[in-house]
Amino acid sequence: MNNKLSIHTKLKVRFSECDSLQIVWHGNYLKYFEEGREDFGVQHGISYLDAKVNGFATPIVKSTCEHKLPLKYGDECTVETTFIPTDAAKIIYTYRIFKDEKLICTGETVQVFTDKNGELVLNNPSFFLDWKKKIGLI
Amino acid sequence: MNNKLSIHTKLKVRFSECDSLQIVWHGNYLKYFEEGREDFGVQHGISYLDAKVNGFATPIVKSTCEHKLPLKYGDECTVETTFIPTDAAKIIYTYRIFKDEKLICTGETVQVFTDKNGELVLNNPSFFLDWKKKIGLI
Amino acid sequence: MNNKLSIHTKLKVRFSECDSLQIVWHGNYLKYFEEGREDFGVQHGISYLDAKVNGFATPIVKSTCEHKLPLKYGDECTVETTFIPTDAAKIIYTYRIFKDEKLICTGETVQVFTDKNGELVLNNPSFFLDWKKKIGLI
Amino acid sequence: MNNKLSIHTKLKVRFSECDSLQIVWHGNYLKYFEEGREDFGVQHGISYLDAKVNGFATPIVKSTCEHKLPLKYGDECTVETTFIPTDAAKIIYTYRIFKDEKLICTGETVQVFTDKNGELVLNNPSFFLDWKKKIGLI
Repeated sequence: MNNKLSIHTKLKVRFSECDSLQIVWHGNYLKYFEEGREDFGVQHGISYLDAKVNGFATPIVKSTCEHKLPLKYGDECTVETTFIPTDAAKIIYTYRIFKDEKLICTGETVQVFTDKNGELVLNNPSFFLDWKKKIGLI
Repeated sequence: MNNKLSIHTKLKVRFSECDSLQIVWHGNYLKYFEEGREDFGVQHGISYLDAKVNGFATPIVKSTCEHKLPLKYGDECTVETTFIPTDAAKIIYTYRIFKDEKLICTGETVQVFTDKNGELVLNNPSFFLDWKKKIGLI
Repeated sequence: MNNKLSIHTKLKVRFSECDSLQIVWHGNYLKYFEEGREDFGVQHGISYLDAKVNGFATPIVKSTCEHKLPLKYGDECTVETTFIPTDAAKIIYTYRIFKDEKLICTGETVQVFTDKNGELVLNNPSFFLDWKKKIGLI
Repeated sequence: MNNKLSIHTKLKVRFSECDSLQIVWHGNYLKYFEEGREDFGVQHGISYLDAKVNGFATPIVKSTCEHKLPLKYGDECTVETTFIPTDAAKIIYTYRIFKDEKLICTGETVQVFTDKNGELVLNNPSFFLDWKKKIGLI
């Protein structure tokens, strides 16, 4: 069984992502996390569009980011996205961004499932359970 | 008849809207134009949501922006939004942003109408013609 | 002595802040927190520009956001920003966003001080201690 | 002599770049143009950082964008960036974005040179003339 599901996504800092301090504006790291998360989702069949096709949305209900070092315009970095298994009807990912093997920041997002009416779904949708089986998590 | 329909919208530059040059990143002016345009739309009953209620979207097909002076973090400015009448099935606005009566930039946007299938609508929708009558343009 | 320093800032959701789910994209709440934080800073003399004038930057080292309810385009909301006193050389704020007295989200940011060379400052800068005295915190 | 200097840059649409209409928000195309422009600049030695090292900034004074077809989340596209020679002290680029050989949008940006005091430079800086010689434009 694979308890740790991780992928690595390469990114390059855009000019428009930097602020007056000439570093990446802190909120833009959530875009990098999202790029990592969706890269994971596309590779593993659990992306935003996979959920949508099954009639669900997966809105973020919690996000955290801790910054160790800044990134500047033009920097190339790698987002490590890790799927964290949980029994709850949630999708949890953790993130670590590296530049030249130096840790830039860490973070976490928690997503829930909502149905076509936007209502919170309290039990794991069957498409998600099927995915967990396929991936070897249950 | 009112040939010139203008409103003024006050704005304050956000920190996250400024770039490494410590001025507003050029693409963010389109957000300011949008704020002016929607302010006009809400006041005059021709907003994004008014179109939506009538089954139409009004995507932007052209936008231009010319910069005369920069804006910095914390600057307060005014967006002047002017509806430009046209017979075509389009919505045209021009914009001028001022700070302390100095002209910061000018711009223009052109929108078209698309129906619920996302198809371009070649004739003016009846809700838009009704609006033009109400406003005294036709 | 005033142990709780809070202000309220009114905001209106911009069209460009909403995502494909037709709700505010989660990362944009950090912009709303920033607007509240800077509003606090300007009113109380501890803004980004106040730090800058004294030779310091105050980069964010941690941010969290928990979402209870979504915001949609055109929604008007209030950001409650609270300064959380600490002895450490940090600036901590918590946030609560309300719409019509319903809690939309909560959050926290932690900032540190860096000097003109971008180096972390381990002790509270004198301008910050002076501010704390003035505000009645020490 | 090379009269047409073009490069191609591949991009993938991010979730956070799409709006409530589930298409890329029009202002985000300026980010794609910027990515193409900087890609050109890095390859040809005329990037934002090359200008900065020589004591100049190159702020955008005009940008236009014309949309033919929308892009959606997950779409992969190519930005074609073309340097347009001019004798004026300006940097002009045109852009075309394609998806599967279909034209998505076209655009143009005009940049000027400002010196370390933020003042407009009316003549071509020597580093820019040197670059033009090197590239075979003069």
